[in-house]
Amino acid sequence: MIDAKTKFAVVGLGVLGGSYIQALSKQGYSIIGIDTDEETLAYAKENGWITEGSTNPSTVKDADLVICCLYPHVFVEWVKENGKYLKPGCLLSDVTGVKQKIIGEINALLPEGVEFIACHPMAGRELRGIHYADSSRFENANFIIVPCENNSQDAIDTAHQLAEILGFRKISQLSGQEHDQMIGFLSQLTHVIAVSLMNASDNTHLKEYTGDSFRDLTRIAKINEDMWPELFILNKENLIHEIRVFTDEMNAFAKLIEEEDVDTMKQKMIISTQRRKQFDPKGE
Amino acid sequence: MIDAKTKFAVVGLGVLGGSYIQALSKQGYSIIGIDTDEETLAYAKENGWITEGSTNPSTVKDADLVICCLYPHVFVEWVKENGKYLKPGCLLSDVTGVKQKIIGEINALLPEGVEFIACHPMAGRELRGIHYADSSRFENANFIIVPCENNSQDAIDTAHQLAEILGFRKISQLSGQEHDQMIGFLSQLTHVIAVSLMNASDNTHLKEYTGDSFRDLTRIAKINEDMWPELFILNKENLIHEIRVFTDEMNAFAKLIEEEDVDTMKQKMIISTQRRKQFDPKGE
Repeated sequence: MIDAKTKFAVVGLGVLGGSYIQALSKQGYSIIGIDTDEETLAYAKENGWITEGSTNPSTVKDADLVICCLYPHVFVEWVKENGKYLKPGCLLSDVTGVKQKIIGEINALLPEGVEFIACHPMAGRELRGIHYADSSRFENANFIIVPCENNSQDAIDTAHQLAEILGFRKISQLSGQEHDQMIGFLSQLTHVIAVSLMNASDNTHLKEYTGDSFRDLTRIAKINEDMWPELFILNKENLIHEIRVFTDEMNAFAKLIEEEDVDTMKQKMIISTQRRKQFDPKGE
Repeated sequence: MIDAKTKFAVVGLGVLGGSYIQALSKQGYSIIGIDTDEETLAYAKENGWITEGSTNPSTVKDADLVICCLYPHVFVEWVKENGKYLKPGCLLSDVTGVKQKIIGEINALLPEGVEFIACHPMAGRELRGIHYADSSRFENANFIIVPCENNSQDAIDTAHQLAEILGFRKISQLSGQEHDQMIGFLSQLTHVIAVSLMNASDNTHLKEYTGDSFRDLTRIAKINEDMWPELFILNKENLIHEIRVFTDEMNAFAKLIEEEDVDTMKQKMIISTQRRKQFDPKGE
């Protein structure tokens, strides 16, 4: 478990890693920041968000809790290269948006005596870099702990404690399979929809006629092209299934319009209205 | 053109017709309200939004400018039944969300000496009934005038003046074809997407993991099932075309994921980001 003497290392000080050190430093913890970019480290230091900063991965050796805030393939590469520096008895965690494959790969690479507990803070945003770090966003975001069968109860409890320290209030636990199915539908499918809608045809000449509903629906078409393709590929079975089910439904709806089947369209609209209302936070 | 002596009739005092009489009465115009529901008329009267109210369509006979705020097929039926009461020299307008077919049907039904100018105030909302009337919503919404070749310049100018009196600041003019294509993409396709996403599978058990982006994307899945099926059918050629182009794009994207074609996915995300930014109001 985390206590006042726990030494943290955060690897990768982008917008999310930056928010982690911002939140942790507020609580007075000792934090090693590791990043490939000297300016980023200097910025973190100036703000008092890290106790020490280094571009050298071996500085991770003193840390009790190491959190990698890296793109998925970079995370795997990092553990492959630098896992040897992890202190026996330390706990490794992450922020990766897809879990099943990553958990398998990381566990296969872990040195003796190091445990990995997978976590997904659902607080991503399209802005990049430490300058956009803002840990106040954690308050209303979900933090999902994704244990595997090898995990100790202590590691799971520590992840829960970490989420609380970071300021998350909605903390839950899912299996890798449950997590990746949920993400495939709620997050990945919706991003593919928004990207495809903007790519289907160039309709930017219609911008002056646009209302809030179009803008709301397509906001996530502004997307980090360096990260999402690999997240999609890591979850391809779930995501391709969701795309198929959704496009089948769209085509079935087109057929209802073609056949002027008002009654079935009405039923579908009543269902969509009822289901969507369940996603409303109270008061919306 | 509209002046202080112009006598308005608004037919159908739902959420939109109610907002019309609310805005017009603020400017002191004489307004006849026509609705099938006595309570609605009483509410309009109590609020001082109408000068006189009636369930009898023949009361329209004194009006210089008649605006029907009715569902499309009800509008056509109303003109068929009651067009005979329209005063020669009066101007008829509407609020219908699809234009080409309606313009043809209404023009074929018009009595001698009456002109129809098609208008689309893009200020719809899912709440129904006069109690939700709120003309302050007009300020940031689009008002589109859709003239046909028969329209006089005076009718077009009057529609423009009406939009200004109602409080719209974004007023534009499109042909029926341009309007219906625009609506097919910006409004109808996006509603079919949201409805289909909620119908594809029952994912309401995922509600606790939902963030703002999913809620934003699906907000319009809460939809008026009595109105939209007929709007879809009235614009079926455009809408079915848009659905086809969009689902083709989704399926092509699924193939990129299947083939792990990161480069093409990246290109599509760069395009979607660039295009979507053009839809941002300044400052978003």
